[in-house]
Amino acid sequence: MQYFPPALEHLVEQFAKLPGVGVKSAQRLAFHVLSMPEEEANIFAQAIINAKTAIHYCPVCQNLTQGDGVCPVCSDKHRDQNIVCVVADPKDVMAMERAREYTGVYHVLHGVISPMNHVGPDDLHIKSLVERVASGGVNEVIMATNPDTEGEATAMYLARLLKPFQIRVTRLAYGIPVGSHLEYADDATLMRALEGRREL
Amino acid sequence: MQYFPPALEHLVEQFAKLPGVGVKSAQRLAFHVLSMPEEEANIFAQAIINAKTAIHYCPVCQNLTQGDGVCPVCSDKHRDQNIVCVVADPKDVMAMERAREYTGVYHVLHGVISPMNHVGPDDLHIKSLVERVASGGVNEVIMATNPDTEGEATAMYLARLLKPFQIRVTRLAYGIPVGSHLEYADDATLMRALEGRREL
Repeated sequence: MQYFPPALEHLVEQFAKLPGVGVKSAQRLAFHVLSMPEEEANIFAQAIINAKTAIHYCPVCQNLTQGDGVCPVCSDKHRDQNIVCVVADPKDVMAMERAREYTGVYHVLHGVISPMNHVGPDDLHIKSLVERVASGGVNEVIMATNPDTEGEATAMYLARLLKPFQIRVTRLAYGIPVGSHLEYADDATLMRALEGRREL
Repeated sequence: MQYFPPALEHLVEQFAKLPGVGVKSAQRLAFHVLSMPEEEANIFAQAIINAKTAIHYCPVCQNLTQGDGVCPVCSDKHRDQNIVCVVADPKDVMAMERAREYTGVYHVLHGVISPMNHVGPDDLHIKSLVERVASGGVNEVIMATNPDTEGEATAMYLARLLKPFQIRVTRLAYGIPVGSHLEYADDATLMRALEGRREL
């Protein structure tokens, strides 16, 4: 590394800080930047600064949004403001939207309760969810956290927390994924699929 | 993708342009930038702009360097300016320097002759190498291009080009890599290792 000019070394270090980027990849990326036209490199640098300054959390659902005020989903008159889908991450909102089935709104927790990683309820956007429900107008809260231990625990915790408001609190269905093979389904999933079986 | 704020989408697109970065990785990197402190994001953006503006090619050896004038290797009085090692890429200079054995100087071609990729001799820093040799003071040129078809062809081409100057033109030795197993050596390498065998 000490054989590169300092500005190049510095750029390599910056790239190497990114998740999943090792020193070799960081070098390849830095060399790619050097080979870019100067204008393109400026656009890249500006995009980084822009993303940091332009994007903020929607004051209602805590999803990422740009510009002033609430996000496009929360301000959409065609969406059912009475149903709130609780997800752990903005990427999960994207996954739900891809399904083109859900017409309600969201609430992004920005994480899950995880004592192992020292993440407690106060580190998540749980208080704003409770306030949202408490202020009325919400009929149903759908827990759409991941079906793993931490996602489960967070969903259970929230369900208990929202119980006093006497609204419907639901959880996404478990079962065998569409297009998969029974043969490869794990025991826990099969058990849940059996439990959740429905009349044809 | 259309569910992200425009500034975030734009940043994802920028990351996705980098070599070896797909859309999923680009999203992960963009989210990482959002989670950075603003100061760190600015340092990252500045590093990109800096690398583009501060780094240029050494007028003598064409290696990457920073600041005015020739690079630290070319200006080093302790290095033998009579021996020039020809490499394809600045990364190859680093590899050679890591070996801590070579005390001469370099010449970086910035590529190899590759008719398949429409790279001819005029696209490389070959003219400046010939001028360097023609102006005298060079006793030996070591061809250190990669031992693949294009690297070979480039070395052969340069050797023929430099013949009239009656200097020594050498090529790095071929053979079995140190620490490897004979069992796994390919035929071509073994053949070259036999050809190049030396008295003990």
